[in-house]
Amino acid sequence: MNWINGETPEGFLEAKTLGEHLGEIVKIRGSVHKIRRMTGFAFVLIRQRKGIVQGILSPEYTPFPLEELEEELCGNFTVEVVPEERSKTGFDLRILAVEILSRPKALSPVVLNQKNLDVNLETALNYRPLTLRHEKERAVFKIQAEMTRSFREFFHQEGFTEIHTPKIVYAGAEGGANIFALPYFGKEAFLAQSPQFYKQMMVGVFERVFEIGPVFRAEKHDTSRHLNEYTSVDLEMGYIASFQEIMEVETRMMRHLMAHLEENAQEELRLLGVTLPSVEAIPALKFSEAKALLWGEEAGAEFSPDLEPEEEKRLCALIYEEIGSEFVFVTHYPTTKRPFYAMEDPQNPEETLSFDLLFRGVEITTGGQRIHEYGEQVAKMNRRGMTMEDFESYLMIHKHGMPPHGGLGLGMERLTSRLLQQDNVRRATLFPRDTQRLIP
Amino acid sequence: MNWINGETPEGFLEAKTLGEHLGEIVKIRGSVHKIRRMTGFAFVLIRQRKGIVQGILSPEYTPFPLEELEEELCGNFTVEVVPEERSKTGFDLRILAVEILSRPKALSPVVLNQKNLDVNLETALNYRPLTLRHEKERAVFKIQAEMTRSFREFFHQEGFTEIHTPKIVYAGAEGGANIFALPYFGKEAFLAQSPQFYKQMMVGVFERVFEIGPVFRAEKHDTSRHLNEYTSVDLEMGYIASFQEIMEVETRMMRHLMAHLEENAQEELRLLGVTLPSVEAIPALKFSEAKALLWGEEAGAEFSPDLEPEEEKRLCALIYEEIGSEFVFVTHYPTTKRPFYAMEDPQNPEETLSFDLLFRGVEITTGGQRIHEYGEQVAKMNRRGMTMEDFESYLMIHKHGMPPHGGLGLGMERLTSRLLQQDNVRRATLFPRDTQRLIP
Repeated sequence: MNWINGETPEGFLEAKTLGEHLGEIVKIRGSVHKIRRMTGFAFVLIRQRKGIVQGILSPEYTPFPLEELEEELCGNFTVEVVPEERSKTGFDLRILAVEILSRPKALSPVVLNQKNLDVNLETALNYRPLTLRHEKERAVFKIQAEMTRSFREFFHQEGFTEIHTPKIVYAGAEGGANIFALPYFGKEAFLAQSPQFYKQMMVGVFERVFEIGPVFRAEKHDTSRHLNEYTSVDLEMGYIASFQEIMEVETRMMRHLMAHLEENAQEELRLLGVTLPSVEAIPALKFSEAKALLWGEEAGAEFSPDLEPEEEKRLCALIYEEIGSEFVFVTHYPTTKRPFYAMEDPQNPEETLSFDLLFRGVEITTGGQRIHEYGEQVAKMNRRGMTMEDFESYLMIHKHGMPPHGGLGLGMERLTSRLLQQDNVRRATLFPRDTQRLIP
Repeated sequence: MNWINGETPEGFLEAKTLGEHLGEIVKIRGSVHKIRRMTGFAFVLIRQRKGIVQGILSPEYTPFPLEELEEELCGNFTVEVVPEERSKTGFDLRILAVEILSRPKALSPVVLNQKNLDVNLETALNYRPLTLRHEKERAVFKIQAEMTRSFREFFHQEGFTEIHTPKIVYAGAEGGANIFALPYFGKEAFLAQSPQFYKQMMVGVFERVFEIGPVFRAEKHDTSRHLNEYTSVDLEMGYIASFQEIMEVETRMMRHLMAHLEENAQEELRLLGVTLPSVEAIPALKFSEAKALLWGEEAGAEFSPDLEPEEEKRLCALIYEEIGSEFVFVTHYPTTKRPFYAMEDPQNPEETLSFDLLFRGVEITTGGQRIHEYGEQVAKMNRRGMTMEDFESYLMIHKHGMPPHGGLGLGMERLTSRLLQQDNVRRATLFPRDTQRLIP
């Protein structure tokens, strides 16, 4: 028998802390990112999980032969941190010894050590396991990891409880054809389009809940803003006085996000040349006002009952020009375009107490207040010709007491992609799924 | 146009802070949990997202008629916090006004306001949207939410980056028949059995990564420890000196978990009468040693190449009796029972550098070191008759340089269930999926 004590392993240093070890001999580890051959010595760039450090390999300091090194080789490096005024970092790293941990078997089909990853999107995605090693590519997902962390931190502060709801479900929340079906032990099941029903159920339990997890949409659109699987940031909250409360929460959430990134992802943002938007007050205009702004007051009656991608883009541009906000809420979407659980405006049942949040030209959030009264929900489902039996467990909450509530779902990849001003949401998705792409 | 400023709404107080408002008139909100009719007045128990408070409804303090109240009604309550020595809390809550937010349409089919939820598992799950409202049921998931939080906090401290990998995949990591298939735009796709391939790919990018998300197993077992969808806590780490490092990380992770729960879930643990295990050093014994301990040295050759559930139970009991540990690592599982990416022990290729962590009678984690050399991986796949083309994108990482690495997957519901000493893992799953259950 052996004992596992939870010991922490021998310390390997990271790029940013090396400056604290001037004059010392320390160990670092990483992949050989690039070798720059000079006369009589070489600069060896070592890529770590964060950052790249430059070592000097010279027969003056080590008998280790340069020919033994190659790009993408993984190793442990013993180095001496020697103060050097002429160096940007304030020190030189003299490589004293190299322990080779593994060697690549072939040259990388994509160049990983130039300033930019110079391949088209298709190639970048085909070689994703390699291209993600590029500094700028991985920065995207470091930022995304910090975004997720920021949201959870915010939710915790505001009294939300995290839930994990099933992705194999008996009915879709959004309905329609955009749903993946699969055989499930002799029955037909579906992949969840959103945690909608479950998060509402959980409002009766914890009042405020959130989930950050995958959702699935079988949309046949192959556009720069659609994915067939994405990460949804969902929240749902009870005891709201009005649906505006949900927008207030999202505004605070965005504010918290930007402050968090400023503090925790500065290097990555700088590397990508990203400017964070300011989130003071966010303007909110009604769907009908938005249409009027886009098309003029008269054109009213002929509008499609939704905002088309082009309209979202133009609306954002208009708002930014006129009042400088990169965010805009559009509220009161037509009842016909919103799902059966959306609460109608008591002042005008053709409009719902719902909203989208648009950011830099794209819708990143859909939210709204839900119906909480049993009679009202059943009546609406009847009007839509729905079968009540299919939703028995969902309707339990309405039948047995629910507070007024609402929530939102935010697309993580879309937000990341707009924040980083990318041309395609796939760039903000580790391993995107679309109608053509299932690999890697 | 309207402006959303991110304002926080009017304050409603929570049970535990009421004591700080002696003599004041404040607002609380919640569901009517129970009404206790006395002579001339009534105690009204109000269930909040955390805890239950008791108010006094009397014509002496309010004209609001008792008949208007019913269980599971949601409301806002204006109350006066009156110091009262004879009360356990140190105060009485006099209800001055009630604003009814919603009424249930029917009596709950399950009793939610007794000390225990007195129904069998089947009923508890059928009425999950309601039964989760029971204090002891929801405590389970409050604890689970804190467990998740604790893991992430730990991962962040130890330099792991969070990733989101696809659940619709082109190949299963575990192989075999236990995989759900679905049609995907004219192709066949599968639901991920684990993020295995993707987390390994990401080790080449961030060195240390983690994901907490759903995984899917089409197992036909209908036992108290199997689920067809569960939440997997996955980590993967590069530059390991040996597979023991992964167990050291898990030991620290468990230690961090217990300390976190002690601090953040005390009330829930007390409510459920749970004693947390101590996590000092965790014993680790080889698979062959475990078998010998269970069956005696001689019986060696006839063993099945895995630990059966009954064996895991007995082994845990033996270890607990002999050395007092509720955790035990079993290492060096037979190569035949481990997947194609498992690294074999150079000293004995019939054993892998792998481990399971058993806790209170059940396996909660499987982990180990993975093959990182391309040639070694390809040779092993060939020996198993696998088609290399199916794994081209996975093998990219081996081909183009990977550090020695390994990781683990931990079943969130199993761990919760053993921690709370429940008789069935479904009790630790919000909305369990098994061969029979797809609803709710």
